[in-house]
Amino acid sequence: MKPQSALYKDSLLNNVIPFWEKHSLDIENGGYFTCLDSKGKVYDTDKFMWLQGRQAWMFASLYNQVEQKEKWLQIAKSGVDFIRDKGMDAHGNVYFSLTADGKPLVQPYNIFSDCFAAMAFGQYALAANDIKYKDLAKKTYLNILKRRDNPKGLYEKTTSQRPLKSFALPMILSNLVLELEDILKPEEVEQTIDFSIKEVMEVFLDKKSGIIYEFVKPDGSLEDSFNGRLLNPGHGIEAMWFMIDIALRRKDKELIHKAVKTIINILDYSWDHEFGGILYFMDSKGQPPQQLEWDQKLWWVHLETLVALAKAYEQIQDPEIAQWYTKVHDYSWRHFADPENGEWYGYLNRRGEVLLDLKGGKWKGCFHVPRAMLQCWRAFEKMENNNIINT
Amino acid sequence: MKPQSALYKDSLLNNVIPFWEKHSLDIENGGYFTCLDSKGKVYDTDKFMWLQGRQAWMFASLYNQVEQKEKWLQIAKSGVDFIRDKGMDAHGNVYFSLTADGKPLVQPYNIFSDCFAAMAFGQYALAANDIKYKDLAKKTYLNILKRRDNPKGLYEKTTSQRPLKSFALPMILSNLVLELEDILKPEEVEQTIDFSIKEVMEVFLDKKSGIIYEFVKPDGSLEDSFNGRLLNPGHGIEAMWFMIDIALRRKDKELIHKAVKTIINILDYSWDHEFGGILYFMDSKGQPPQQLEWDQKLWWVHLETLVALAKAYEQIQDPEIAQWYTKVHDYSWRHFADPENGEWYGYLNRRGEVLLDLKGGKWKGCFHVPRAMLQCWRAFEKMENNNIINT
Repeated sequence: MKPQSALYKDSLLNNVIPFWEKHSLDIENGGYFTCLDSKGKVYDTDKFMWLQGRQAWMFASLYNQVEQKEKWLQIAKSGVDFIRDKGMDAHGNVYFSLTADGKPLVQPYNIFSDCFAAMAFGQYALAANDIKYKDLAKKTYLNILKRRDNPKGLYEKTTSQRPLKSFALPMILSNLVLELEDILKPEEVEQTIDFSIKEVMEVFLDKKSGIIYEFVKPDGSLEDSFNGRLLNPGHGIEAMWFMIDIALRRKDKELIHKAVKTIINILDYSWDHEFGGILYFMDSKGQPPQQLEWDQKLWWVHLETLVALAKAYEQIQDPEIAQWYTKVHDYSWRHFADPENGEWYGYLNRRGEVLLDLKGGKWKGCFHVPRAMLQCWRAFEKMENNNIINT
Repeated sequence: MKPQSALYKDSLLNNVIPFWEKHSLDIENGGYFTCLDSKGKVYDTDKFMWLQGRQAWMFASLYNQVEQKEKWLQIAKSGVDFIRDKGMDAHGNVYFSLTADGKPLVQPYNIFSDCFAAMAFGQYALAANDIKYKDLAKKTYLNILKRRDNPKGLYEKTTSQRPLKSFALPMILSNLVLELEDILKPEEVEQTIDFSIKEVMEVFLDKKSGIIYEFVKPDGSLEDSFNGRLLNPGHGIEAMWFMIDIALRRKDKELIHKAVKTIINILDYSWDHEFGGILYFMDSKGQPPQQLEWDQKLWWVHLETLVALAKAYEQIQDPEIAQWYTKVHDYSWRHFADPENGEWYGYLNRRGEVLLDLKGGKWKGCFHVPRAMLQCWRAFEKMENNNIINT
């Protein structure tokens, strides 16, 4: 492994963050534009609430973890104020999307917007030492817990005939609970961590194949249906670095080894040997997946894999991890990065050609790229300081 | 133009229909399996109700229009019985999907399953001279009309903030009302035809560009949003052959010319000059569409275009139509057809390579391929008989 903390630090501070600072701020209404073309021009002004939460969280995190820049705090404030003032219905549920000036467009039909709002409120409360946002973070978290058994509520279209549980819930909870650690009671934190580890590593991680499934039956067994066969390699790998973080917190070496093994298993399974890169969706039985975009290469999948492999190598200096890191690093930086205009492209076709030349849209905002840059910067910095990597 | 009725007739009767007869019938439960791999093997047994309706309709149509084969009638009966007995909730709404043995999986969250059920009931009633299915077709149609202003009902996630109306509704009604002509009152038929022509040709057909939009504001104007900018070229072209059929029925030459012009406009706009074929989705302002599958080539888009161009040329012998027909014909038969295993592939990537090697799935069943074969067979037969095409 080569030293790379400088690459990630420089890219975060001089390429990625300036892109969002320059192009995404809605000075008039507060909050952020996320639909930005390759050069940063706004091509749609609708506001997708989980991206609002993610960007506010990101800037508050930069303030808390990198430098206490007043500008970053103000950018974060603009987002959390917008979510609080415009983005929540009378019951405290977070809408899916709003117009630029804050009129609700799509109802709160899931709890993911709420999760990112809670993370943003929590991180901003810490940055600004704001008790009101601390309370709102807690309130939003409790509302998520209330809705967790039926996250889509009235909008749930599936019957109770053949219930499946979704990997997304324990995965996001494992991240959310660490984010809100200062706000929640210690026993609440430990209990949710226990739940997440068990669900992720014992239920959704399939013993036989060693990879993560997106949906399982309530008893944990596999179902032979479109959703039951679905694999989302990037999702599984992202969850593994959440598990490594949890394992470090708990000093659980066994969990670290299990998570690292799972990262390698998923990469072996999902790497595209023909064109390089990690496939977006797969079917565990090799049947045609229902997702037509299954063979595309997505930015977040590759960035989360870089974070996972950097954290893995920091713990276990196995050449197999280093080889995978190099392979994914070379593919990602060659195909996704845009040194000229800033940020990364998001969507490539199977051959690695840019499919949509946007830097932000309905599902891509200021989140995976800067978060991964920050995580990789810090992981490499530690490895370089501890002589795990020779500088 | 070359004579091609024999090609389409032979392909329909010796390649496509045998595929579905051999592989799709669920002898045990009734209804059809639609998830079939390239050779016809069932890879998933769930039943998607609009595909059940479409296949029942197709076999009843073959019985009514091609040959009164007892086998075809029985296949159609198996489908309509399954829909009637298992596929409808207490209010007569048609579920989206069921298990193989008929347990509801996904609620009736839209009216499209109902539209194809009504078409199947009507066509089967005609084939079997069955008054009960005639009544059920009518009842289902009236229920669709009742739901048309809010087709998603409780499952509608958008607020009333920025309402858009959808092209799919007038388009499907224009087809449905002709299907149910024997069942409905004449004034009901004429009224719905009037509504459809007006909506399709004056509201969704944009005067400036000459192409069809998927969504417009209630006042008919265009909206600058993801849905407001959305173009679905195949959808527009398919609707144009419905319009030609209606125009012939009404002896409306002006409508024929307008529909044919629109077909050419859409083809000029959406043909992929780099790799050939018609793009699946486009953004009217050239912005990145939210559909990641936008650049794929889909079977139904190309088949409906062949039908539209054959019908257009039957009416107007313009060399431009013949050139487009030849271009789309050559692309389609070279890339989608599978003379060896039967049926057509459904999903190609932008380069025309098979992306999913299924013959049927959640959204592809026994419908577009055989319907287009039958329509093209008949259109070419007429042109050959009338010396529009020299045999």
